[in-house]
Amino acid sequence: MMSMNESAPIEGPFRLYGCWRSTCTHRAILALRFHDIDFHYSPIDLTAREQEQPEFLAISPDAQVPVLAVGDRVLTQSLAIVSFIESITESADTKPGAPALFPAEPETRAHALSICERVSSFIQPMTLPGAIRRSIQSHFSRADDAIFSEQAKGFIEAMLTDNLRKLDGVFARHSGPFALGQAVSVADVFVYPQLLGAQRMGFDLAPFARLSSQTEAMARLAFVKAADPLALPDAP
Amino acid sequence: MMSMNESAPIEGPFRLYGCWRSTCTHRAILALRFHDIDFHYSPIDLTAREQEQPEFLAISPDAQVPVLAVGDRVLTQSLAIVSFIESITESADTKPGAPALFPAEPETRAHALSICERVSSFIQPMTLPGAIRRSIQSHFSRADDAIFSEQAKGFIEAMLTDNLRKLDGVFARHSGPFALGQAVSVADVFVYPQLLGAQRMGFDLAPFARLSSQTEAMARLAFVKAADPLALPDAP
Repeated sequence: MMSMNESAPIEGPFRLYGCWRSTCTHRAILALRFHDIDFHYSPIDLTAREQEQPEFLAISPDAQVPVLAVGDRVLTQSLAIVSFIESITESADTKPGAPALFPAEPETRAHALSICERVSSFIQPMTLPGAIRRSIQSHFSRADDAIFSEQAKGFIEAMLTDNLRKLDGVFARHSGPFALGQAVSVADVFVYPQLLGAQRMGFDLAPFARLSSQTEAMARLAFVKAADPLALPDAP
Repeated sequence: MMSMNESAPIEGPFRLYGCWRSTCTHRAILALRFHDIDFHYSPIDLTAREQEQPEFLAISPDAQVPVLAVGDRVLTQSLAIVSFIESITESADTKPGAPALFPAEPETRAHALSICERVSSFIQPMTLPGAIRRSIQSHFSRADDAIFSEQAKGFIEAMLTDNLRKLDGVFARHSGPFALGQAVSVADVFVYPQLLGAQRMGFDLAPFARLSSQTEAMARLAFVKAADPLALPDAP
């Protein structure tokens, strides 16, 4: 990775477009808080499908949150945003010993990334965010909204149960309480919002001992408290 | 990132467990070929659900391919594998000018990663690989297999159309033919297998001018030819 004095300096301000109940937004806020970066927060109302309005599409044609604007740079997708935040701050790359979310050692880094991928590819999409939910309803289910909601609840619960059981097994390879052991990493930044989101849906984490311990350990960290989605201005 | 002389040397041999029609396996093979790494290939028959058999679960309890075994290290998830391969080879990090899939400049790197995420979170899962397909059928569709297959075809086509249109727009920000412009990157390693997979399903890429150009440009590269999934021993 290029050291900071080789690249153009990053000029703020930082503005994050997001939604309190978006687990991907929560990932970005955790990374910003971890690195102690001040940012403006612009809530996007996903329930009102504000992300599909021309005002937001002018910022990001993807119609998704989070979006991080840094000066005139516009960054999308949460792993890209979290990785960018780390790369522009004093991380282990440029200052050994500085706090870092991405482990420096290649194998450990790969394990952290593999956990992020499980969350972003197998868990988050299977909680049926907006467009996916609408498309599943129109293509597969002939049911009305009430019955479809019940079907969706069953589907999400089955997918969460299977994938969180596997994830709990992955956590069991280390002594905890975090994904890779004693130190928090980018893996926790991806897992924690997903676990809180599952709890908000009424999903019980108790059967997953290591995941439950992780949520408790995370909730005690100052940067995690500072990233509380329920403290965002658009939270209920 | 740690330079190679700071970490333990990586001892081979490399063994990749995969399946010819798995687009995630193809990502890993592209990275191995890009970095000119020899590897043994162990085909896993996903149609026969060999990934759920005890022999494979002993290697990786996730029941997913690809898995990369390097000596006694076992790595799962494709972005983690691709990132690991890059980090243990002579990349731009340790030897400026050496071939690299991950751009060194933070903003460009973030753009590359954001394209990988679109593919791995919004496109690949929506092509309904095995477990997701079975769960959707059992929770949402009361239809028999033949009707469900038609429903699935319609769903996949709708999701691909929407997401490939957006991806084509992302490619349009650069002059091409590759995702980020003139140089191949990890973004192409994720996009190309997905586009070949879509074509195998009978999906027409012609309406997506930049994506079509990318597949043509990719197909001409020596490392891409060496990673041809149809040349794998388990291909039909």
